[in-house]
Amino acid sequence: MPHDNTHKVIIIGGGFGGLYAAKNLKRAPVEVTLIDRRNFHLFQPLLYQVATGILCPGEIASPLRHILRRQKNTKVLLGEVVDIDPAKKTVILADGAVAYDTLIIATGMENYYYGNESWAKFAPGLKTIEDGARIRQKIFFAFEVAEREENPAARKAWLTFVIVGSGPTGVELSGMVSEIARKTLREDFRAIRPEESNIILVDLAERILPSYPPGLSKKAADSLTRLGVMIRNGVRVASIDEGGVTVEGPSGRERLDAKTVLWAAGVKASPLGGKLAERTGVRLDSIGRVVVNPDLSVPGHPDIFVIGDCAGVPGSDGKPLPGVAPVATQQGRFVARTIRARLGDKKTPQAFRYFDKGTLAVIGRNAAVADIGKLHFSGVPAWILWLFVHLMLLVEFENRVVVFIRWAFQYFTFNRGSRQLRAEGPVRLPLTTSSVKDDTINNRD
Amino acid sequence: MPHDNTHKVIIIGGGFGGLYAAKNLKRAPVEVTLIDRRNFHLFQPLLYQVATGILCPGEIASPLRHILRRQKNTKVLLGEVVDIDPAKKTVILADGAVAYDTLIIATGMENYYYGNESWAKFAPGLKTIEDGARIRQKIFFAFEVAEREENPAARKAWLTFVIVGSGPTGVELSGMVSEIARKTLREDFRAIRPEESNIILVDLAERILPSYPPGLSKKAADSLTRLGVMIRNGVRVASIDEGGVTVEGPSGRERLDAKTVLWAAGVKASPLGGKLAERTGVRLDSIGRVVVNPDLSVPGHPDIFVIGDCAGVPGSDGKPLPGVAPVATQQGRFVARTIRARLGDKKTPQAFRYFDKGTLAVIGRNAAVADIGKLHFSGVPAWILWLFVHLMLLVEFENRVVVFIRWAFQYFTFNRGSRQLRAEGPVRLPLTTSSVKDDTINNRD
Repeated sequence: MPHDNTHKVIIIGGGFGGLYAAKNLKRAPVEVTLIDRRNFHLFQPLLYQVATGILCPGEIASPLRHILRRQKNTKVLLGEVVDIDPAKKTVILADGAVAYDTLIIATGMENYYYGNESWAKFAPGLKTIEDGARIRQKIFFAFEVAEREENPAARKAWLTFVIVGSGPTGVELSGMVSEIARKTLREDFRAIRPEESNIILVDLAERILPSYPPGLSKKAADSLTRLGVMIRNGVRVASIDEGGVTVEGPSGRERLDAKTVLWAAGVKASPLGGKLAERTGVRLDSIGRVVVNPDLSVPGHPDIFVIGDCAGVPGSDGKPLPGVAPVATQQGRFVARTIRARLGDKKTPQAFRYFDKGTLAVIGRNAAVADIGKLHFSGVPAWILWLFVHLMLLVEFENRVVVFIRWAFQYFTFNRGSRQLRAEGPVRLPLTTSSVKDDTINNRD
Repeated sequence: MPHDNTHKVIIIGGGFGGLYAAKNLKRAPVEVTLIDRRNFHLFQPLLYQVATGILCPGEIASPLRHILRRQKNTKVLLGEVVDIDPAKKTVILADGAVAYDTLIIATGMENYYYGNESWAKFAPGLKTIEDGARIRQKIFFAFEVAEREENPAARKAWLTFVIVGSGPTGVELSGMVSEIARKTLREDFRAIRPEESNIILVDLAERILPSYPPGLSKKAADSLTRLGVMIRNGVRVASIDEGGVTVEGPSGRERLDAKTVLWAAGVKASPLGGKLAERTGVRLDSIGRVVVNPDLSVPGHPDIFVIGDCAGVPGSDGKPLPGVAPVATQQGRFVARTIRARLGDKKTPQAFRYFDKGTLAVIGRNAAVADIGKLHFSGVPAWILWLFVHLMLLVEFENRVVVFIRWAFQYFTFNRGSRQLRAEGPVRLPLTTSSVKDDTINNRD
């Protein structure tokens, strides 16, 4: 048992940053408390597969307690952090308070609609497991309503899917929705032909996957087009409502009637960074990330670190590091090393440096793009690399096996087993479909 | 494509009865419409494994459309049936109406609290996939709160689990909760010792599994006791509230302080039988089952059949047939055969006869009881038979493989991967735990 004067490390958030910080404090002479609102670590890189019915939530969620059960200096606390008191070195929970000697904030990102937060209702983003379930519900429900809809215009709107944002998530989602329509559901309906669905990917950027080299963007765009996705670059979303999206592009305003709109265009740092800024005066960047010192500590507060997506850390090119799992993981390890060094009176590392092993984006079966140092490649080799990397990264061995089998089946059968509608509540169709028809027809402008 | 004058069969409910009726009409000259509120068939015999975190909902839910996709004379309709009009031969949906020539009602059962429906809030039953998710949430959440609770009495109430009803579901649930406490979570907590949890199985009946031969009941009770379950037979539940259960037995009234109470004591037929009785005058039995003719048709309405759990059919011993999957499956096949015979001008079967292959109840790992004709056995052989039968019955091949792997891992590791808390909404602890303490301490009477 740790003594009462043992150094107390509190980690807020059990994502990649927080979990790897905790794991790397395993042998340190500290008492670690990992606080999360949920009791599980989410393997976010595969969340889009939950949103599209390939995987069950449980297959990408591992209980934090279970992962850390043998790490005796660490406890997991299910709770919601509402504030931080740096003067008293205390974390304020919704139902209590906990004291720290060192604090690590790793609370990640949430969806962001650039001031149009009312769009969230019509166009869910994909950050949490609840988002994944909601998007899945939306996608598969649309085909059910279309099957029963007799008005051709309304039916078309139910079979039109607009994905806003052409970064990796938007590309993954549009490729997946296309496969659902063209393969998974091909034989399932009688009144509609799901393969005639319209899948539209819109973005203000001039090309999809803008953070990738132009050659790979082109390759990804070709793959998506072959999958039947219509790519609309250089258009701005003017509004989103129940019936669809209004976009503005070089050719003026245009209405896209679509009952299913998915948001993959914006994220911002979690609000705890704002609390921290109020309490410490630390600066936030344009999307709310905490601008930290090179060693990831908060200026003037060497006992507070911010890591992962909610930290604003410039990379070697001066731009902020991307919000991806490897950055968070490496920062978690770095901060744990710093704490160990401090307690052991050793030299602490001066500045976090991200070791970029490269990035991978998947488009669909046999289609991915890889940007690894000077190596750019696409197609089947990139896809196999993607499969391999993601399987290896899955935290629990059991999930690795189950996910592999799901993928193997899905590859050959195109089936998606995890598509029960409204699994957490009875499915009911709208009482009348007439309102649907009216909305969709009259909203054309 | 079927002609407009093709005989129209409507099946309400996609459980075992409805699904097997539909499948056995595959080659009949009919147009089948299968209506369900949900888009999936639920493999109910394994629902308790979802409720206890071994399986994901998607692993026991198969999309009805997918199962029936190649059966070209059959369509699936996602919708809620609110009434039946036998005079107009029409099924009334919440959002429309559909005409039938032959109607098959297979809407199953729901939880029943014998007039104390307010108990449902405190003691969820296990009929739907939502129930499974709710019970899972309740069980795993209790340990989380106990970990943070400092008052010993309140902590004990969070670590006390009462299961009401000692039929197969109650036995399965209590065995599973015991394994969760004693094995799965053994190393996960720091402040509590989950293995010190109290698991109490209460029932008015004089022995558990009352529908089994007394020798097997005894074997099952021994197994449960070894697992640490406290069995309380011959006690009646007087009331259930937020803080626990009040029971009445030979030794008087007694209060069981328990924050987790699960209901496995009662079911009644779905309310559509009541509508049918209003419209046709058919008799309902004490738990709302429709009392049908020996050929499962409604008296005076040869074009309406009622099958599965919501039908009241006497078995060879005069007692109603049990609400189990094999009865429903055989009735679905029987009714399909009757319809085919009628349309083919062949002799229709006179009376449904249940072919009882025997029953199996599982208690925990390596422990089950089997009652197969004159053969009664228990322990590992019964358990292996149970595993085999349930794997073979799982509708989709992919799920069979995934479930087998989950079981294999769970057997050796005791881990339960599907235990993310409130996966469909953020987990938050009660704002204060003081109310919990007060409730539990003062309610003792």
